[in-house]
Amino acid sequence: MDDKFREECGVFGVYDKSATGNKLATQAYLGLMALQHRGQEACGIAINKDREIDFHKDVGLVEEVFDDKIINAMEGVMAVAHCRYSTAGNRTDKNSAQPLVVNYAKGQLAICHNGNITNAEQLRQEYQLDGAIYRSNTDTEIIAYTIARNRLAEGSVEGAVAKAMGILRGAYSLIIMSPSKMIVARDPHGFRPLCYGERADGGLVFASETCALDAVDAKFVREVLPGEVIVVKDGVLHSNTENCGKQASSLCIFEYIYFARPDSTINNQLVNDARRLSGRLLAKVKPVDADIVIGVPDSGIPSAIGYAEESGIPYEEGFGKNRYAGRTFIRPDQMSREAAVRLKLNPLKKYLEGKRVVLVDDSMVRGTTNSIIIKMLREIGVREVHLRMSSPAFRYPCYFGTDVPDSIQLISYGNTVDDVCKIVGADSLAYLDINDLKNIIPDAGNLGFCHACFSGEYPPNTRP
Amino acid sequence: MDDKFREECGVFGVYDKSATGNKLATQAYLGLMALQHRGQEACGIAINKDREIDFHKDVGLVEEVFDDKIINAMEGVMAVAHCRYSTAGNRTDKNSAQPLVVNYAKGQLAICHNGNITNAEQLRQEYQLDGAIYRSNTDTEIIAYTIARNRLAEGSVEGAVAKAMGILRGAYSLIIMSPSKMIVARDPHGFRPLCYGERADGGLVFASETCALDAVDAKFVREVLPGEVIVVKDGVLHSNTENCGKQASSLCIFEYIYFARPDSTINNQLVNDARRLSGRLLAKVKPVDADIVIGVPDSGIPSAIGYAEESGIPYEEGFGKNRYAGRTFIRPDQMSREAAVRLKLNPLKKYLEGKRVVLVDDSMVRGTTNSIIIKMLREIGVREVHLRMSSPAFRYPCYFGTDVPDSIQLISYGNTVDDVCKIVGADSLAYLDINDLKNIIPDAGNLGFCHACFSGEYPPNTRP
Amino acid sequence: MDDKFREECGVFGVYDKSATGNKLATQAYLGLMALQHRGQEACGIAINKDREIDFHKDVGLVEEVFDDKIINAMEGVMAVAHCRYSTAGNRTDKNSAQPLVVNYAKGQLAICHNGNITNAEQLRQEYQLDGAIYRSNTDTEIIAYTIARNRLAEGSVEGAVAKAMGILRGAYSLIIMSPSKMIVARDPHGFRPLCYGERADGGLVFASETCALDAVDAKFVREVLPGEVIVVKDGVLHSNTENCGKQASSLCIFEYIYFARPDSTINNQLVNDARRLSGRLLAKVKPVDADIVIGVPDSGIPSAIGYAEESGIPYEEGFGKNRYAGRTFIRPDQMSREAAVRLKLNPLKKYLEGKRVVLVDDSMVRGTTNSIIIKMLREIGVREVHLRMSSPAFRYPCYFGTDVPDSIQLISYGNTVDDVCKIVGADSLAYLDINDLKNIIPDAGNLGFCHACFSGEYPPNTRP
Amino acid sequence: MDDKFREECGVFGVYDKSATGNKLATQAYLGLMALQHRGQEACGIAINKDREIDFHKDVGLVEEVFDDKIINAMEGVMAVAHCRYSTAGNRTDKNSAQPLVVNYAKGQLAICHNGNITNAEQLRQEYQLDGAIYRSNTDTEIIAYTIARNRLAEGSVEGAVAKAMGILRGAYSLIIMSPSKMIVARDPHGFRPLCYGERADGGLVFASETCALDAVDAKFVREVLPGEVIVVKDGVLHSNTENCGKQASSLCIFEYIYFARPDSTINNQLVNDARRLSGRLLAKVKPVDADIVIGVPDSGIPSAIGYAEESGIPYEEGFGKNRYAGRTFIRPDQMSREAAVRLKLNPLKKYLEGKRVVLVDDSMVRGTTNSIIIKMLREIGVREVHLRMSSPAFRYPCYFGTDVPDSIQLISYGNTVDDVCKIVGADSLAYLDINDLKNIIPDAGNLGFCHACFSGEYPPNTRP
Repeated sequence: MDDKFREECGVFGVYDKSATGNKLATQAYLGLMALQHRGQEACGIAINKDREIDFHKDVGLVEEVFDDKIINAMEGVMAVAHCRYSTAGNRTDKNSAQPLVVNYAKGQLAICHNGNITNAEQLRQEYQLDGAIYRSNTDTEIIAYTIARNRLAEGSVEGAVAKAMGILRGAYSLIIMSPSKMIVARDPHGFRPLCYGERADGGLVFASETCALDAVDAKFVREVLPGEVIVVKDGVLHSNTENCGKQASSLCIFEYIYFARPDSTINNQLVNDARRLSGRLLAKVKPVDADIVIGVPDSGIPSAIGYAEESGIPYEEGFGKNRYAGRTFIRPDQMSREAAVRLKLNPLKKYLEGKRVVLVDDSMVRGTTNSIIIKMLREIGVREVHLRMSSPAFRYPCYFGTDVPDSIQLISYGNTVDDVCKIVGADSLAYLDINDLKNIIPDAGNLGFCHACFSGEYPPNTRP
Repeated sequence: MDDKFREECGVFGVYDKSATGNKLATQAYLGLMALQHRGQEACGIAINKDREIDFHKDVGLVEEVFDDKIINAMEGVMAVAHCRYSTAGNRTDKNSAQPLVVNYAKGQLAICHNGNITNAEQLRQEYQLDGAIYRSNTDTEIIAYTIARNRLAEGSVEGAVAKAMGILRGAYSLIIMSPSKMIVARDPHGFRPLCYGERADGGLVFASETCALDAVDAKFVREVLPGEVIVVKDGVLHSNTENCGKQASSLCIFEYIYFARPDSTINNQLVNDARRLSGRLLAKVKPVDADIVIGVPDSGIPSAIGYAEESGIPYEEGFGKNRYAGRTFIRPDQMSREAAVRLKLNPLKKYLEGKRVVLVDDSMVRGTTNSIIIKMLREIGVREVHLRMSSPAFRYPCYFGTDVPDSIQLISYGNTVDDVCKIVGADSLAYLDINDLKNIIPDAGNLGFCHACFSGEYPPNTRP
Repeated sequence: MDDKFREECGVFGVYDKSATGNKLATQAYLGLMALQHRGQEACGIAINKDREIDFHKDVGLVEEVFDDKIINAMEGVMAVAHCRYSTAGNRTDKNSAQPLVVNYAKGQLAICHNGNITNAEQLRQEYQLDGAIYRSNTDTEIIAYTIARNRLAEGSVEGAVAKAMGILRGAYSLIIMSPSKMIVARDPHGFRPLCYGERADGGLVFASETCALDAVDAKFVREVLPGEVIVVKDGVLHSNTENCGKQASSLCIFEYIYFARPDSTINNQLVNDARRLSGRLLAKVKPVDADIVIGVPDSGIPSAIGYAEESGIPYEEGFGKNRYAGRTFIRPDQMSREAAVRLKLNPLKKYLEGKRVVLVDDSMVRGTTNSIIIKMLREIGVREVHLRMSSPAFRYPCYFGTDVPDSIQLISYGNTVDDVCKIVGADSLAYLDINDLKNIIPDAGNLGFCHACFSGEYPPNTRP
Repeated sequence: MDDKFREECGVFGVYDKSATGNKLATQAYLGLMALQHRGQEACGIAINKDREIDFHKDVGLVEEVFDDKIINAMEGVMAVAHCRYSTAGNRTDKNSAQPLVVNYAKGQLAICHNGNITNAEQLRQEYQLDGAIYRSNTDTEIIAYTIARNRLAEGSVEGAVAKAMGILRGAYSLIIMSPSKMIVARDPHGFRPLCYGERADGGLVFASETCALDAVDAKFVREVLPGEVIVVKDGVLHSNTENCGKQASSLCIFEYIYFARPDSTINNQLVNDARRLSGRLLAKVKPVDADIVIGVPDSGIPSAIGYAEESGIPYEEGFGKNRYAGRTFIRPDQMSREAAVRLKLNPLKKYLEGKRVVLVDDSMVRGTTNSIIIKMLREIGVREVHLRMSSPAFRYPCYFGTDVPDSIQLISYGNTVDDVCKIVGADSLAYLDINDLKNIIPDAGNLGFCHACFSGEYPPNTRP
């Protein structure tokens, strides 16, 4: 029902050679709970005790897949965890849940992957000529083969991962566990975030976002660098940066706009702040005369607050939100899409009636939800609705680990801004331009961004 | 884990004599979803087709108990629905889920009850001398007997309900369905809210809160009056007000502070507005010098915004909130209470570090959560924490349908404000006084409130 | 699918005042497993510890409803248990599962009932005039009310049960538990079996059949008498026989033919022996010239063996039986009734081909299964099929606790023996006559039998 | 609890190019139900529609894993199915359930395997040097790799299977489905049975046992030959016999004694007849003076009947059997092994008291069950118990697809017959000798048998 793109996955790893009992399983569980917004389809935890990897994974939310009994039974000194996204009605089969745990020449590997390998199909065909068999159609299995095929020649699993960086194309933030090591790697473009932190008790923690470090009380140390391969063995961390800098960095800018949690910090910028800044910029370049500013919960709220701050138009809470309708809920036969939106968002008539409203949202995919929201606003007597998007219009597919509908389903594909404005029923519509977009991360330094979904400018050699 | 009181129940009813298919079951489902915050333990829907009442109920959230198949199979022209609260680890058995559906001399009755009968035990004993048998220990079964025992003498089910008003003491907002009627009644004190609305298609809707009217696209018509018995038959609504005004009205004021949804309106006051007003009042009477105001999500936020508006101290978002940790989640053995709070609420260091903070919350029961929050704030470098509660301190038990711990568990029982301040580790602590409390509903008219949990002043003849 | 009548219920009770831990719950579980053939729809156990009755019940087989954790948590010194029957596709709702546990004037009662109260509807109407409410449509709730309404006047629960004997009509074998007593009663006609045994450790055991005594290693002591009320208190058993002999005994003779387990003994006759004797009698009075005798598994086998013994025609195993298809299994859309029978019973061609066969079965309801079996036998080359039934033809309804289809569904209703023979495709067909039927229990003494389903001769004053 | 060996698996396949709807899924379901005795741990069905293979599999019995909805949704013209065994408490993870469905260079393969590859570990190591990764520790994955690695060189999947026969050692009855073919193969020794049948509608059926042919109304055509590779394409069957006769045939003789269903025919001998013959032989060579012969249900019964026929001592039914205790049931803490046996088997005192009894069973593994049975017999007054086993004593491990405990757990390992007799408490004990064993299949022709578990004589080059 959500009229949004979805991030594909979240990854988490923790290494604490002195851990006992369910300590690390509990941390992995907390980490997964913190990353649940990055994937609600399936999840899993693998844990390493005495060089033996045990795992539990299934389709479902973290709270559905795990219970006390399962967590309490998972003991070890290293754990990796993964959650992945699901489109309603098309839940991935259990076989694709991660961590992917396999046996290969040197024992077990547990692999957690966030991203998308753009030459996976080509590698799949190459490997199967040598007799490879596949149990899923995930690119994670391709990553596993790529490591397995290079392990003996490279002499170490971390060497095989570094070698794989020259073979795999596209986006990959990886957290891998072998019988004796944890290996963490990020593709040379750095499409997906990946960070590193430490706990006061010496535990080393790796995660897609800093909110997962916070959830396990770990202090943020630094980002994992694009192209970096980190290996932790016997509690000691080694970094291999030989692949760093080989590509221009191109972090997905939509992580700031929608994917990441507002309390996460990516490259020194708090996501909530980036969103508020996007609202401020939007107010500057796309002003409008109105009585109040409201935001579409949840991700439109900080942008709306920013817009209000910059424009001087008062911010107001526009909607009551039903937090129990946050998950996919059932849709009986007679229940319309409108009823579903109405259940989730309840406009606060008392604040809105008779007002000219700036309605701020972060992005629009098919436009259906915004159409219904605007209809609901008019029903309760809102006089004008000026829709402001805190990001540019989507026009191009993403190949780097997000759930992208065909361009044909994008409301901005083949429609002008005026067309879209009419379709959704707003009085005016404006977007934040691509040029302004980078300014939501003011101190980016030489960090570069991928904004291909808006601009169509893909980093070189990255398209399938 | 939540350091909060809990409302016991939500009730919902819809009558639409022209309804076909699953129309009313879908509306009942939407109504329950909208009232889910009033009870997460168990829920159920009963539906009346051709004078036959069918029902489905179970322990669990609405989305767990119902699925498309169940809803689609429920057809009829009247439906009643109920959700009820659960304390973690003490889930009520299935037998206590409502609607309570029984057979009696005149066929079936489906009863939905929000409240608490304070003379239930006395009635239970009286009835069993005549051979009554009980299948549960709920007061709803006592209500059923009281109606059944008076049905023949009174000549109608609505007459029996009116008669029962003279027998039952305490709090009860009732929605009842007989083979041919819907009966809606509210105790003469009007402890619990109950409202009435209409859909454009002629459907009559009754619900604990207006947010449930909104969820089914019904327009609010009016409150059900304290002491009123409404009966709907053949699509026509009749009101019996003979019991109205026999008692001074005493609406639970804590509905505004915490129980009700912010987008519900009770007696002409939007709950969100009552909360914001409580913050404004608090700022006036309990001011403090500080750099920013933050609120404890979710119910403390509007009060914090009100406090900021009145005091002129800037409002800031203090916490990232993990919306996936909103439900009861598992607590593996090694997971501390602090870890659980940390998972739910992540302080936004960037905004808070080095600041003197006003921390606004709506109420405090055991004080444990606030202690942990204040500890977390200090860890990230907050200089001062001034805790402000938008309601008075809890000191007395509630007998009217909420989940109240023994007084002994209340942090304010036997502790002075200074004691509590020290226990939770704040730099200062202040509450909204009982005297100011009524001002959060400015236009209450001759509506009276129950604030016994704060004041110990119980409405006459209502204690068990 | 089964072309058979079904017994409605099995009851079990155990009293052992020195029991600790899960000892009695385990015995109740074993007892239920032993009585599972008497009811596969729902089951439950109630246990009494320190005068508090706890219970667990649900729809499903014993092994589905109970697990180690549940059994191990049930502690106490008295336990009662019940299983009941289900027609496929019409599983009784959970509310009707027994033991029925209620509260009444003197605390808790847990009631287990096997039988059928024929004046239940009349009592239901009488009680509801006094305000009774019903949570189910079971006659067990009527029994509960009857006891509750007489408890205070009679001065004891066992007195109330004895009093109820003058009020309740029809069939009832009852095992009831109060806070301090176990009460066991059997209707004056003694329609359903009920026996009493003792364990070496002093435990007193009551059960529908002796096979349940065997399962808990209890020695059979005697039948509970028709009209008897036994009460066990403080470990001592008292018998009230004031209602004994008021009616002519009329034990259901079909218990011997089909319902009871072959290893149970009822009134000194081993059920397996009664069946074998029925075959011997059948061979005497309905002889036929043939090569081999085979039986329809399972209940037709002993009769077939008896037929072979008496006739001198060799007995042969006629069918392989799929023991995994014994329970209700799914029937996908394209799966015919014939496929279902074929899955269950596989004729052993090697033994049957070219033979003239006597096919012995215990009873025939709709005739469909026998038609298919005979078709299968002819397909593998059987030359002649002589069908012999070890009981008379069903022609009349049963009101005493069995699952009886409308007469209209009985193949023998309105069809002559010749008609039926043609319908099922046999070369000849013969039944055991009613006159011979009693001879299958040679030493019955003054025990009388109910054979109304065959003869239409109902015991006086017992029809609804 | 069962004191028996277990067969590992059952396989089933059906090809019917004109099939529509769920026809073949229903047949596969029936086939699995018929083969359920060969594996109760996990099961699955894969179906091929328009060259796409879909599958459903899980741990559990067939009736637990499948329901109408699943079967009705499976459409196609080829189906393969598999069930596998489970030891209680050690249920294989879902990953090992079959059919194993993989992708390889030529699309999908669904593999069903009954047997055990004795050089699997060696092949596993060889393949992983080339970069193979494993998702399970089953030998079925080794079979898949072996086929995949030879597919391109051999030019066809059936060629690759034939080639694999030179690589794989041990026991394998395989039913494999590719996008356009069904391939059926049996190892050159023919350890496990595998047969072929045809339905009247042209459907080709392959199964471990003929009882599965019967269940889908298919006529037995012939055994699949040891070493044969059958491929069905476009509805036409081709046989490759190039590997036939390369090894001496060595069919597992224990299939006749215990594993196979009595109504299955293997190599022209009805299993029930083989068992009866074993009893006859036993009576000849191990006679004893006694009053009656009884058998241990179920597999000991035909041997007991044979013993009675040959010896002239009357056969009697010795036990009532609880058919609901046939599956693994729970064992609460206080429930002894003896209680579990007592629940399953109830000696019929009336027939046995005061008698000298020959007790016939098919085999003894740990001896515990027989000990308990003999104790129970003595308790009810049996005078003498002469235990007769219709197979030799187990002394050696089996490597060919059965569940064999360590030798150390075998009662006959290190104990003389006299020792064992004393341990189980019998008055006398005798086994059928290895020399006599072959005579239970009188017309075996040049069929050879594996009896290594009794004799220790393993076929050449077959041990791991």
